[in-house]
Order: sequence, then C-alpha cells, then structure tokens
Amino acid sequence: MEKRVYNFAPGPAMLPLPALEEAQRELLALPGVGSSVMEISHRSKTFADIIERAEANLRQLLAIPDNYRVLFLQGGAQMQFAMVPMNFLHGSGKSADYIVTGTWGTKAMAAAKTLGDVRVAFDAGETNYDRVPEPAEMDLDPGAAYVHITSNETIQGVQFPAEPEVGNVPLVCDSSSDILCRPVPVEKYGILYACAQKNIGPAGVTLVIIRDDLVDRAAAGLPPMLSYKAMAEGKSLANTPPTFAIYMVKLVTEWLLREVGDLEKMAEINRQKAKLLYDAVERSDGFYLPHAQPRCRSIMNVPFRLANAELAGPFLEQAEKQGLAELKGHRSVGGCRASIYNAMPREGVEALRDFMLGFCEKNR
Amino acid sequence: MEKRVYNFAPGPAMLPLPALEEAQRELLALPGVGSSVMEISHRSKTFADIIERAEANLRQLLAIPDNYRVLFLQGGAQMQFAMVPMNFLHGSGKSADYIVTGTWGTKAMAAAKTLGDVRVAFDAGETNYDRVPEPAEMDLDPGAAYVHITSNETIQGVQFPAEPEVGNVPLVCDSSSDILCRPVPVEKYGILYACAQKNIGPAGVTLVIIRDDLVDRAAAGLPPMLSYKAMAEGKSLANTPPTFAIYMVKLVTEWLLREVGDLEKMAEINRQKAKLLYDAVERSDGFYLPHAQPRCRSIMNVPFRLANAELAGPFLEQAEKQGLAELKGHRSVGGCRASIYNAMPREGVEALRDFMLGFCEKNR
Repeated sequence: MEKRVYNFAPGPAMLPLPALEEAQRELLALPGVGSSVMEISHRSKTFADIIERAEANLRQLLAIPDNYRVLFLQGGAQMQFAMVPMNFLHGSGKSADYIVTGTWGTKAMAAAKTLGDVRVAFDAGETNYDRVPEPAEMDLDPGAAYVHITSNETIQGVQFPAEPEVGNVPLVCDSSSDILCRPVPVEKYGILYACAQKNIGPAGVTLVIIRDDLVDRAAAGLPPMLSYKAMAEGKSLANTPPTFAIYMVKLVTEWLLREVGDLEKMAEINRQKAKLLYDAVERSDGFYLPHAQPRCRSIMNVPFRLANAELAGPFLEQAEKQGLAELKGHRSVGGCRASIYNAMPREGVEALRDFMLGFCEKNR
Repeated sequence: MEKRVYNFAPGPAMLPLPALEEAQRELLALPGVGSSVMEISHRSKTFADIIERAEANLRQLLAIPDNYRVLFLQGGAQMQFAMVPMNFLHGSGKSADYIVTGTWGTKAMAAAKTLGDVRVAFDAGETNYDRVPEPAEMDLDPGAAYVHITSNETIQGVQFPAEPEVGNVPLVCDSSSDILCRPVPVEKYGILYACAQKNIGPAGVTLVIIRDDLVDRAAAGLPPMLSYKAMAEGKSLANTPPTFAIYMVKLVTEWLLREVGDLEKMAEINRQKAKLLYDAVERSDGFYLPHAQPRCRSIMNVPFRLANAELAGPFLEQAEKQGLAELKGHRSVGGCRASIYNAMPREGVEALRDFMLGFCEKNR
C-alpha cells in the first residue's frame, strides 16, 4: 500500500482509515448485491438501508430530537447560503440577522443579500475576525426572519464556545467545519447545516438538520431542488441523491460510534489535540503567533503565523518532507493552519507538535 | 471477489469494471500523494490535473468546440431544471418553449413554470409519450428565451434520432440518459446538460456544456451556486466540487477512450445491443410489446410489456435469479425496462435476449 501522510487540509480532509478500507473492500460489489454501491438504484432496498443507517447514526451521535428532519442535499454549505434566504427571507417582509465571525459568514451574508433584506448583527472584521461576539455586542432584531451564525470559521479558527442567546428567533447555523466534533444542543437551533468534507464524509453531500415547524413555514412554490418542503417530503430522494457520498457518511459515522463511542469522548480527544498545538504556540515565546482569541479558539482549525514571516516557506517545506501535509494557511490570515478534524489521529498532531518545537529550537 | 450481476437499472447504473477496479486500487492513497482522492484539496495540483483531464476527455469524445465551457455542478439534472429558467427565463420578458416527450421533460417544464412563462411547443402525453414530434407538430415561438428538449426519455425509451430544427433560438437539452452514447453536434446546442449516473460516472455530479454567449447573457445577481456566470468564472471551483465523482468521470471517460476509442464506435456497439432486444421483442409475435415508436426508439433504454401482464412477475423473478437485475419498468409505463448504457457489455444484453426468447418459448 502507498504510504499515507498526515493531511492537515481544511477540507476535503482526512477520513478515518477504517472507513476508507471498508469502502475499498466492497467497491466492486456490495456483499450479496452483486453491484457497486455506485451502481445501485437510490430507490433500492439496499440503498434505503444505507441512508436510513446514516441518518440513525447521526441522530444517535447528535441526539437529534424527533421534531427535526435530517436531509442529505447537494451543493455544499454554499447552496445553503442561498436556500436559507430563498425559503425564509425572500418575500417574508422581514430582514435576517447575520453574525459574521469570518470568511464563511461573510459569504453566507453576501448570498442572502441577493435575495432579501439583511442586517449585520455583529461583524468582527475590524480585528480581522479573531473572535466571536460578547452578548452585549450583538445588535439583534427580535422580529428577524432568523439569525445566522457560523459555529466554526475554518479559515480564522474561531469557534463559538456555546450558542449565542437569540431569544425566539430561529437560529440558523453553518456548522460545516465543526459538526460532530462535540455534543451540540440541537434543540437550540432552527437549522443546522454542514457540508460533509470535514467531519462527515467526502465532498458532494450536505447535511441539513431542520425543525419541523420551519419545514412547514418554508416558502412554497420553489423549484423542488431548492425547497426544504419538497426535499423533506421526498426524504432526500426527490431526486437522485449523491449515493456514494451518503454511503461514506454511513461508514464514517459507524467508525465514530464504534471506535470513539460518543461525541463527549470525541470532544475530549479533540480538545486534547488542539491543546497540544496551542501549547506549542504559547511555549514558543512569540516564535509562533496564534490568530484567534483564547476564549473562542477552534478545536478543529488551528491557524498560526511565524513571527519571522520568511520562515514560513521553510517551515512548510520541511513539514511536508516529514509527511505533515497541507499546512499552508489561507491568504487572508497568512502563515500556517493545522486542521485537525475527528479523523486526524492524536499521533498526527503529536508529530506536528514535535516538528513545531524542533523547528522553533533550530530557527529561533 | 463478490460475483457481479448484469445490472439493467436506469440510473444509478452499471459502471465500467476497469474504472471501478482502478478506483479500488488507489482508494486509500493516490500514487505519490499519500491521501485518498476523497481527502485532497479541490485546489491542489493533484485535483487540478484530475478535473482538467476529465474535461479534456469529454472535449475529445464529444468534439466540444472551443466556444463552449464544460462545468461540473451539483444537484443532478433536476437542479438544471431550475437553473436554466433562473438564468434565462425569469425576468427576461420572454417565454420559453418546452418540447415534452416523457416524464423528465414534464418535470423540467413544471420547474420552469415556478420561475416564468412557459409555452408547450409539443407534448406527446396523448399517446403516453411514445414518440418525438414530427417537424410540423412543433409550435415554436421564434422569440422564445430558449427551446428545451429531453434527448432521451429514460422511462419511455424515446430518443430524438436527430436534433429538432429550432432556428436561432438557443436549444437547451437534458441529455442525462444518452450523453456519450453517440456523437452529438454540440454546436447545434446552447446548453447540453446531463446528470452523471447513467453514462458518465456516479450520482452526485452534473455535466453542463454551455456556449460562451449564453454565459455572458445569463442573469446577473444570482447566488453563486445557481449562477452559470459564477460557476463558469470559478471553473467549477466556486465552491468545493464533488471531487470523488469528478475523479470517477475521469476514469470512465478514460475507459471509453482506451477500450472503445470514440463515440462513433460506441454508438455502433449501442445500436447493436439495442437491436438484439428490439429484435427479440419483434420476433416474439406479440408476446412482448414495445413502448416507443420505431423511428425514435432509444438505444439506451428499452421498455417493453408482456402482453399477458400476469407473466411480468415471473419474468422479473426468473431473470433476477439468472443475474439479470433491475428489469422492472417504471409504473407509468409498466412491464419491463432494460437500460443498456455504455458500460453494459454486449454479453449482458445477449444473456437477456436469450432469457427473453426462452421465457417466451416456455410461456407462450
């Protein structure tokens, strides 16, 4: 087998090796079926079992209440940037509140502006998106159609430590880069959505968890593919869903249940992994500089710069040679970023931590 | 290895075994990369090579002129049912002409009606969608925003033998179930779109071939995921594309180029395969009844009924036992349907033909 590297990419990102191995074993023919999972009808009993199992695993892991639907859609989080305002803002006579804590929140708000009235309830742009708001900083409209947040900003490494208090307005959350990283009180949300390619599976499927009353209140008359009503009524099968990607979601969630157990345990492992890196940053005495403020540092994405920016190139090159891949930061923040999703083993993070300490030692 | 069956499903459908085998070999780590294709960034050099090769293969196979863009989108053909009118009908002050020859054309038209003015230029509903129009039967508006056709109706097995003449109005075509089955004069179309899960790859990616001037004329101000302009400018990377599905498109088109050669040869093979089945139907002297009229019979989907409807159950059961799977017809047409896309080998069709002849012999 080809040697596998520790892949710190922000997404598409590492998948659990046992899930990949299982997919590989049965790629030509599912046991007892005689066709690849890519070749079977989305209306077959075999696929019905797969999508039901994927949903059941997610319901168990996230303790999703019965009054929420679980949908598997296409188009990534960015399609949700449009579907949310198409279904709840456009033509509503209301405006929507956006709490913007990074690049993805900014994009979500821009898409909503093409479809309706948007209010900026908070924007951390002045400090280059290094934090979430304090309660008093939010300018919330109690009559808003919804409040939108990004629970974890992949590029800035800023994560809400807990849900902001938004009263009775439905809270809509892009949880693309931290879903399944820790337990979540789903009942505090109207809609939780997430692309798959960080913690759930491969790119090409989008998870939407939506409360029943919002399905009922969603706009009527939209094309089916853009309508939460139609997709909920069709149980994600109003059209042919991305069957292979959903199958991978089943395998990844099975891995999580089998090898980790639950999201409390996953969160503890993730907190420890993130701490290894933040401690290395702190102990470097200014050689490495963190981006996010301590109270809202992400346990999924750890962006940091080298105080001497000229060392960033050698840092990335030498890391790559040691099998520590995809550590380049996004241009808007600069420097480096280690994305350490659920599938990144602790050993990978320890290897990076050791490399960081050694590189600092040699180049200080 | 699990025994593979001959899978006559309408889609998701059989994929070429060599493409599946290649995907299986490198599923854990692409050679020299150290990560699965599902784990690499869509902005990496490795993925850039994959998507460029997939596009180049399609350009070669379909002889796509330089003034057409090739896009890989999400949401299947049904998302195109909405995107086409969002980009070219809504707010245009024009109406769009729909030529309806089956179930999918009906759905395309219904989605367009939610977004603008639609004219029925032809509808074969009176004869249960058994044919395409004769030229004189089409009621075309020379001022239409576009004319929409479905080149092959998967459920009814009705295929346009050639493009209808629509003057200077852009011809928009849902080619989901016959793209790559034969050469196509792409220059006659404004837009050709197709979901992947019949002849191109697995479910989860949608091919859109669109002429430059239509990209320029497409509506501005749409959310990026629904805008041909934005998706063309971003070269299908305006968001994270379905990377694994696009990789499979590369493998499937490589198989086609390597093992078949070109679409002339593929068409000849497909015509022969379809003829084997239609001949068996004709020779049965009314035991099997075809659905589509002879001049527009699909070479991809062969629907037929048993004159004695009570024999349909035993026919399907016995076929299944012989490894001839997924032959049940759609409820709107009834009976049986053999979908024989590019990846269905001639041996599979011969096995079905032999079974049909034997079953007829025994049960006549």
